[in-house]
Amino acid sequence: MTIKIYGSFRSPFSMAVALAVYEKDQEFDLLMMDVKSPEYLNNFNPFGKIPSYQDDDITLFESKAIMRYVATKFADQGTPLLGSTIVEQALCNQWLEVHSHSFIPPMVETGLAIIRNPQQPDNSVLKPALEKLSNVLDIYEARLSASKYLAGDSYTLADVTHTAFFYIFNAITDDEMKKTITSRPHLHAWIQDIISRPAWKKLAERPENTRYKH
Amino acid sequence: MTIKIYGSFRSPFSMAVALAVYEKDQEFDLLMMDVKSPEYLNNFNPFGKIPSYQDDDITLFESKAIMRYVATKFADQGTPLLGSTIVEQALCNQWLEVHSHSFIPPMVETGLAIIRNPQQPDNSVLKPALEKLSNVLDIYEARLSASKYLAGDSYTLADVTHTAFFYIFNAITDDEMKKTITSRPHLHAWIQDIISRPAWKKLAERPENTRYKH
Repeated sequence: MTIKIYGSFRSPFSMAVALAVYEKDQEFDLLMMDVKSPEYLNNFNPFGKIPSYQDDDITLFESKAIMRYVATKFADQGTPLLGSTIVEQALCNQWLEVHSHSFIPPMVETGLAIIRNPQQPDNSVLKPALEKLSNVLDIYEARLSASKYLAGDSYTLADVTHTAFFYIFNAITDDEMKKTITSRPHLHAWIQDIISRPAWKKLAERPENTRYKH
Repeated sequence: MTIKIYGSFRSPFSMAVALAVYEKDQEFDLLMMDVKSPEYLNNFNPFGKIPSYQDDDITLFESKAIMRYVATKFADQGTPLLGSTIVEQALCNQWLEVHSHSFIPPMVETGLAIIRNPQQPDNSVLKPALEKLSNVLDIYEARLSASKYLAGDSYTLADVTHTAFFYIFNAITDDEMKKTITSRPHLHAWIQDIISRPAWKKLAERPENTRYKH
């Protein structure tokens, strides 16, 4: 069975799973289902969220669990994604958790403030969100000044999970917003690195992909 | 070096790390630091949260990353905690994510409503929180009617991470609250199982532990 990803290219979480699959030199079909339908809730994810994943051996949900499964199942193919030592593996896991608990909340808050009114975002919402995000990005800058990737010398799932978010963020043309990235040189270099990878480019160029083409 | 856990027995996240260490037949020192001090932010966790972990090889934060590291480093000692097949391993990871994203939010909401006024919680806050939690626990009940543990036949980190939360919840004496658990027989049996494990009992009986003794 071809790998099936139930999700959307509008979701950075679905994109993270798709990117992990491509980094492993595997192919997938992207499918969309009504996540509140009994079929989806009963067979894919009882919590009614995307993405879900299916292959011959498993049906699975939660993007980070899926990425780990893909990285383990296809361990010998494509890019190793779990870290090359037990320490790198631990730091990969640490930064995957940082993504969930420290990065996503201010990133989503910032993103919503912009999406609600792209031409003239409400600064009373955007400013404090951006300040929280900036504090987090200072920690990323410090980390990335000490190592090439989040987990160490090796590109891992910790980088995979951030790629779609920073790809969108990097494409914002507003000068003030751009500085959020460009004023942090190690963060900036890391973003250019991870969005230049062949697997990401292949994903961004898939025909059904609209959001990530610009 | 003895394993050092920087945290508190008042934190179920610290308890989860401590439980993983005990399940691996290892010992630890529990230490508390000012998480906003430069020393803690610079050397342990730049995000200023507990728990952190230190041994001869690594300093690490984020409870689930620490648990995975402990489970991997001491793979051959104590209880295997990562699942015995690639499918169990994937489901262990899936339910660790469920814990973070679906279980914790309504559990914390419910807990806060009770803690704010234990004798007479504000029902306008407690009721909707408890309803959300109940919906999530229905999914746990369905899962635990199909398998003994969250990931399958084997006890794993997915169970470890829930233990402290359900231990507290299970000790609530209010009849209505008790029913949240007892009306779900498989959930109820699973909770009794995981809080009866020797490693958990040993942890609950540590002298510096006050919260978990009752």
